[in-house]
Amino acid sequence: MKKKRVVVIGGGTGTFTVLSGLKNYPLDLSAIVTMADDGGSTGVLRDELGVLPPGDVRQCLVALSESPKFLRQLMNYRFTAGGLKGHSFGNLFLSALEKMTGSFDKAVDMAGEILRIDGRVIPSTLKQVELVAELAGGKAVRGEERIYHADLSHLKALRLHPRASANPKAIKAIRTADAVVIGPGDFYRSLMPNLLVSGIPSALRKSRAVKVFVCNLMTKAEHTRNFTVEDYTRTMESYFGGTFDYVVWNAKRPSPLVLKRYAGKGDTFVEFGKKLPGRKYIGADLVSRRAVKVPKHDPLTNQRTLIRHDPARLAKLIFSIVRPRA
Amino acid sequence: MKKKRVVVIGGGTGTFTVLSGLKNYPLDLSAIVTMADDGGSTGVLRDELGVLPPGDVRQCLVALSESPKFLRQLMNYRFTAGGLKGHSFGNLFLSALEKMTGSFDKAVDMAGEILRIDGRVIPSTLKQVELVAELAGGKAVRGEERIYHADLSHLKALRLHPRASANPKAIKAIRTADAVVIGPGDFYRSLMPNLLVSGIPSALRKSRAVKVFVCNLMTKAEHTRNFTVEDYTRTMESYFGGTFDYVVWNAKRPSPLVLKRYAGKGDTFVEFGKKLPGRKYIGADLVSRRAVKVPKHDPLTNQRTLIRHDPARLAKLIFSIVRPRA
Repeated sequence: MKKKRVVVIGGGTGTFTVLSGLKNYPLDLSAIVTMADDGGSTGVLRDELGVLPPGDVRQCLVALSESPKFLRQLMNYRFTAGGLKGHSFGNLFLSALEKMTGSFDKAVDMAGEILRIDGRVIPSTLKQVELVAELAGGKAVRGEERIYHADLSHLKALRLHPRASANPKAIKAIRTADAVVIGPGDFYRSLMPNLLVSGIPSALRKSRAVKVFVCNLMTKAEHTRNFTVEDYTRTMESYFGGTFDYVVWNAKRPSPLVLKRYAGKGDTFVEFGKKLPGRKYIGADLVSRRAVKVPKHDPLTNQRTLIRHDPARLAKLIFSIVRPRA
Repeated sequence: MKKKRVVVIGGGTGTFTVLSGLKNYPLDLSAIVTMADDGGSTGVLRDELGVLPPGDVRQCLVALSESPKFLRQLMNYRFTAGGLKGHSFGNLFLSALEKMTGSFDKAVDMAGEILRIDGRVIPSTLKQVELVAELAGGKAVRGEERIYHADLSHLKALRLHPRASANPKAIKAIRTADAVVIGPGDFYRSLMPNLLVSGIPSALRKSRAVKVFVCNLMTKAEHTRNFTVEDYTRTMESYFGGTFDYVVWNAKRPSPLVLKRYAGKGDTFVEFGKKLPGRKYIGADLVSRRAVKVPKHDPLTNQRTLIRHDPARLAKLIFSIVRPRA
């Protein structure tokens, strides 16, 4: 039987989690990855070398890699001193391949070969873009890193500058997918930029794939204050102009102790809200039992995510949606 | 039939040439590599990260690599801008592995695995050392990079600071070798530092391996002015306290045009000189017919070596010495 084709759209830790879980199932996996990152090691490489942002691609490659553990660890190794300080080795790897070949697309393919990935990692666009948040009153915040720290409570529109069309491989993957999974992940930073790439929303609308939205566990005060599952779903749908077939949400409230640690920043547990008609809802305990280790030297790690999705639980649930009915 | 075990001692372009040629023969190859380099990218990494020098090891790994061409090219790729400028990717690769594992020895093994090398690359010592040239009159030049540019016509002694004992793997390789090949290569910079490591000279003296010296094509005015094959052989032998079984030298004088380009710096063709008793001499045309391309951005490349040994001719000759008699 042919493997089901599953496309995961995102970037960052959430997408890493989904891919890490799904790779244990007999699926044909593709990851479509945001290209808006401009912070940390990635930002320095973009500025200094003029390369496309390697950080999110790197994480997806590592998630799908079948190579020995030390090679996957090496990709995430960060230098801690001198002129290399803060750079993850995997970012330098992708950037060197890009400079050598003159093509980020080729670089990602070569990296996938070296890391023996089972699946495909597809940059959403191959154009240099900047994420721009337009706020009410005419103000704009430019750059993903600045947007991450900005108050978006008066967000009017999110866009890419300049306009960028999609990587043809991304369109093809969406068109031919049996299922598309979006989320979890930093909402405006890791997920949304993919939907701002010209061609991706229409491909999603036209695709006969089952569309699955995996909602976040916690809100982020400056971006999605008090968002419910309903708010997340509506907002995400508004950016691609279609509706999800499935909404996967976490029904397990974390302990008061954990919630208290988030409360200081104004981040709260994502409540369910109301059902939207036409979507199937699957609520389950999706919280990882493993304590989150925050790597000391990893500026990319979002220190807020003390609780995370459990890769195995989440993958099992997604697979139950995707697999052919008996 | 068991493959003959051949150990090549050196570092730099000369050793790369020997290994590249010999790898096409059915031999069990090991490279023992100098650890005295402190210039360029390697020097910066030593200073900033406290790692052992990766440059010469990288070149030997690439020479023995069976991996796809693009991966070997990537190892030699040098960044040309920003904070990474001048670093070869392969150096960053080895240094990241060393920092991650806490061991240069492990790093070299892992790199060998990733690059699928056929053979072994063995750092001559695992201690941080500095090359020191003591000149007549009590002056000393410290550091391999400075020594490279210094006038050594009044050289009294070359030594490592601090004293360093050999990597046990190097001793074992020499002890069990069927043949040991030293040279060609930068005499005081790439070849000699290996013989300054405590334990290596005595292992060479005790080894029953056939000892082969491959003499350089051209002298270097500041270091080996007017040296003949005889002078090179004597000097090299004096550093390990034994004698070579074979001396391989180049009998083909380059064209006057090429010699003229060297003459400005005082570098001359290596004349034969006198035979030393007990050594077998093999003179042959060993000069490469390929024009040497000097990579624009490669500060490690010795721009003087307009003529080089031909890997295939040299390897064929060495193999004729090493292979079992009919």
